[in-house]
Amino acid sequence: MDKPPHLLTTAEPFEPAQRAQLQSTLSAMPPLHAIGCAVFDATHGHLVLGAPLALNVNDKGNAFGGSMASLMTVACWGLFNLHLLRAGIHAEVYVQDSQIRYLTPVYEDLRAVAQATAGHDWTEALNILHDKGKSRIPMRAAIVLADGREAATLEARFVALRPAVK
Amino acid sequence: MDKPPHLLTTAEPFEPAQRAQLQSTLSAMPPLHAIGCAVFDATHGHLVLGAPLALNVNDKGNAFGGSMASLMTVACWGLFNLHLLRAGIHAEVYVQDSQIRYLTPVYEDLRAVAQATAGHDWTEALNILHDKGKSRIPMRAAIVLADGREAATLEARFVALRPAVK
Repeated sequence: MDKPPHLLTTAEPFEPAQRAQLQSTLSAMPPLHAIGCAVFDATHGHLVLGAPLALNVNDKGNAFGGSMASLMTVACWGLFNLHLLRAGIHAEVYVQDSQIRYLTPVYEDLRAVAQATAGHDWTEALNILHDKGKSRIPMRAAIVLADGREAATLEARFVALRPAVK
Repeated sequence: MDKPPHLLTTAEPFEPAQRAQLQSTLSAMPPLHAIGCAVFDATHGHLVLGAPLALNVNDKGNAFGGSMASLMTVACWGLFNLHLLRAGIHAEVYVQDSQIRYLTPVYEDLRAVAQATAGHDWTEALNILHDKGKSRIPMRAAIVLADGREAATLEARFVALRPAVK
């Protein structure tokens, strides 16, 4: 028996079809196709996106800050969209603002991990969106190195808007 | 007679060779080559970079937020590097942190304008770098629409480091 959509377990993966739809949407965007943005892992609790260093290198041979900003931003955006897909809600997700910290240069392939900010949950955000047509959620992403250290962090606010009824 | 390098007039353009060197550095970075990043205008007071919408479009047909973040970040970075080139100082420039606000969707080619934050000047930043080997400057960039409105803004801190003497 299917679980009702409001019951979320953070470690549970999204359906393969939902994950494939997100990858397809990402790859169709020219700036994300160019940096090789790929879905690595997608659970209700977090989305992990990757991108090869070779496509994102700067003049110093490490990862370009703009690529890290892009990957962290779209990892948050993608997680919100996966929750909308799962809940069957049609809405557009926009980033409103973000704060990024660059902590250490990255000399390896990029991996961005995104999740809702602690204390905020998707069930509540989706319920508000369903009732009001608009919902915000604060999110956090990081570029996580192979050794587990964070090389950059992003805190951002995202808003989803249901199309107005005509 | 050449002006001494410490006298800066904000409206004065950088030398064509300095501008060409910046364009060459930008185009050699795969993620910036991919978004079509081009130098539009470069004076001592500001750097203007552009990128075509077609290479930076999202799933909604407007400009991808990550591309705007990249272009604003590298516009600041580029202006700092032009000042280093002009002053003949060899140093690496890094972005430390940034705050970005997304104000309105962009349906036209991107144009990012970067400058030092009001109250901070390049002469002082370069003098400190010369004396101490390290210098920070806060900068501001915006995505400016054809009608003059700002579609996104970035405030960021950049640091330049001279290589340690061996």
